[in-house]
Amino acid sequence: MKVIRIGVLGCGNVGAELVSLVNAQQAAIAARIGVRLEVTSVAVRDAKKRRGVELGASAITTDASSIVNDPAIDLIVELIGGIEPARELITAALRNGKPVVTGNKELLASFGTELFAVADAAGVDLLFEAAVAGGIPIVRALRESLRGEPITRVLGIINGTTNFILTRMTEDGADYSAALAEAQALGYAERDPTADVEGYDAGAKAAIIATIAFGAQIVAADVYHEGISAISAAEIAMAQRLGYVVKLLGIAEVTPGGAVGVRVHPAMVPFNHPLASVRDSYNAVLVEGAAVGSLMFYGRGAGGRPTASAVLGDVIDAAVNLSRGTHGSLGDFARPTKLSIGETSSEYLLSLDVADRPGVLHAVTGVFARHNVSIRIAEQEGLGPDARLVFITHVALESEVQATVRDLRELDVVRSIGGLLRVIGE
Amino acid sequence: MKVIRIGVLGCGNVGAELVSLVNAQQAAIAARIGVRLEVTSVAVRDAKKRRGVELGASAITTDASSIVNDPAIDLIVELIGGIEPARELITAALRNGKPVVTGNKELLASFGTELFAVADAAGVDLLFEAAVAGGIPIVRALRESLRGEPITRVLGIINGTTNFILTRMTEDGADYSAALAEAQALGYAERDPTADVEGYDAGAKAAIIATIAFGAQIVAADVYHEGISAISAAEIAMAQRLGYVVKLLGIAEVTPGGAVGVRVHPAMVPFNHPLASVRDSYNAVLVEGAAVGSLMFYGRGAGGRPTASAVLGDVIDAAVNLSRGTHGSLGDFARPTKLSIGETSSEYLLSLDVADRPGVLHAVTGVFARHNVSIRIAEQEGLGPDARLVFITHVALESEVQATVRDLRELDVVRSIGGLLRVIGE
Repeated sequence: MKVIRIGVLGCGNVGAELVSLVNAQQAAIAARIGVRLEVTSVAVRDAKKRRGVELGASAITTDASSIVNDPAIDLIVELIGGIEPARELITAALRNGKPVVTGNKELLASFGTELFAVADAAGVDLLFEAAVAGGIPIVRALRESLRGEPITRVLGIINGTTNFILTRMTEDGADYSAALAEAQALGYAERDPTADVEGYDAGAKAAIIATIAFGAQIVAADVYHEGISAISAAEIAMAQRLGYVVKLLGIAEVTPGGAVGVRVHPAMVPFNHPLASVRDSYNAVLVEGAAVGSLMFYGRGAGGRPTASAVLGDVIDAAVNLSRGTHGSLGDFARPTKLSIGETSSEYLLSLDVADRPGVLHAVTGVFARHNVSIRIAEQEGLGPDARLVFITHVALESEVQATVRDLRELDVVRSIGGLLRVIGE
Repeated sequence: MKVIRIGVLGCGNVGAELVSLVNAQQAAIAARIGVRLEVTSVAVRDAKKRRGVELGASAITTDASSIVNDPAIDLIVELIGGIEPARELITAALRNGKPVVTGNKELLASFGTELFAVADAAGVDLLFEAAVAGGIPIVRALRESLRGEPITRVLGIINGTTNFILTRMTEDGADYSAALAEAQALGYAERDPTADVEGYDAGAKAAIIATIAFGAQIVAADVYHEGISAISAAEIAMAQRLGYVVKLLGIAEVTPGGAVGVRVHPAMVPFNHPLASVRDSYNAVLVEGAAVGSLMFYGRGAGGRPTASAVLGDVIDAAVNLSRGTHGSLGDFARPTKLSIGETSSEYLLSLDVADRPGVLHAVTGVFARHNVSIRIAEQEGLGPDARLVFITHVALESEVQATVRDLRELDVVRSIGGLLRVIGE
């Protein structure tokens, strides 16, 4: 039986789970695909550190480049993360004719199309299911199953930390800082939670999704993002009263003219929308296509074992291709026109603290009308000094809504304006 | 540019949508995969019938076998359905070295492993994403992404007609016959709804899922099935009161010892379970794996355009493989030990109409105890002549629960026993 010798770069949580999964499944995989997988070399930062996995006969080294240049190694799994040295190691491995499986979203979100071109030129696989939404096979679905589908939009809950925090705020009425502290205590959030709560992590994943969904060169720096740290329990309760749940969404869409827009921001999702029931640290990606309608993929977006499962799926794919002398192709990626956030459209929720006196509603609605923003729902909560107006608009252009907000701030009857929440249609 | 000439057998709803999708997406697909797809021949039953699609330069014929034997045709799409002549035509096409894409669940559920062996022997692709859950890419996920995953169970809402009927009964309190009539009026149910409502359609799909999830030879005849025609609005309301929604599930599971059980029956699903929010005619498949945890795939399980989208994804895959001189493999399928319904375990809901007199609960619970069925919840509804006992058991063996029911019928204090509903754990 053909043996594929695997070199693993990085042996943290995911790497250790991968090695133990390969060991446990070796016979079953061999029976199914006719190829025996062997992890023969593992590169680590600290060779003395004890790990929760039996590395057995694998050679341990701190020199990752010796693995990518070893002719006895057939296939590389990169789990170091970050830009360098991962970028250099992957490039060298591909040029040496070794297929690469990686879960490195940061690298792919900035240098993806460069690496895809290196892989195509070398005629080997570069697979990265684990880089987006952990164990959920969304990358393969977009790259293969949906290759002929005119995809119009992808909406994803692609950060488990923020989904956990928003779920606690929604279900327990917790405020943001208490929910964050709970997420930190459970290990769902880092001590410095910025990358998660400000939308950087979701932005990198959204860039990768847009790249493969639309065959377009999109990098993390192209992604507009707003996080969840400014969301209050009161806003979440207001959204609930109106029939919505607040989720941090990564959104990638293409206009009929081919312009691609990618953004991350909190959004109000109607209760009966499939994304509304995605709770706790679960992830889900909803793909909208002209022919297929709405498809949703749901599961664990992080964690050592689910992520290792995604890596192993890619390793098997690459091993089968290698044993047949073939490989997948990522094709060409066009440089699309990029849709700025101002050019996007949505429904919006706006809440205003106002003076409760005659003519206020008239003055406020005049500002909306001047900017062509049409109102779908208007409600007054409270009376006298506590009066608050809540509006949900019809679909409007972001730039006009932003202009509306600017002009509303100038009105002397408006005391303050609550966060602007975009609303996802049913 | 390489051209792949496609012969389509059958031009009903899905076939017509496929032809129009290929025509509309031809340039975009060619740009992405470097292969031009052309539908050059279409076999129909009635050449004079007008269709809602421009067949353009395609040759129309009523002789399907002339297409599978035409050396100028590279790839066959089979959308005739049923066992013969589809089985014969697919076999001939594969032996002629032509990859085949089919959506024929009936054929695959009875002769799948036979056809897989023909395809492997011929060294060509046999792809069938559209045969299970329409546009949802569950077949590719099981065949490729999850090839290394130790899958333990698959739970699917894989019949849109019955899900629509159950949704109407749950949300509007409609009774079964009214909900069925509504489904028929909307075109979701056939005039003779037997195949859907008695679980035959779901059973065929569950057999295919089990075959590819576990690499096991399972056919439709191996699948135990119960339908929904005996479910009453009162049972659904009772389930709701207890925190459950009733769904028709296809269930495929493997024991640690490797025995495979496949069944279709109504089941109570807890409100916060991801399958509970799958409404109307939508389908969803939940895959449980030891490493990946729970993954769910959700979307349109039927309809011309979603199904054609799945067929097109397979056509592109087969065309790319053909242009590279390679093909996917289905591998070997073991003959597993089959788990009978009596050997499966679940929680169960049982409701009994009983005489309301002292000692009844004692007599009834004695029967449960005698068969090792332990009770998790016991409730009495109503009084006097309307007294009803509702039980939810802990996990118990089906054969012991059936024995419990048999013995309960013998008790003179038990007037009648309501339907037995299996309960899916959280």
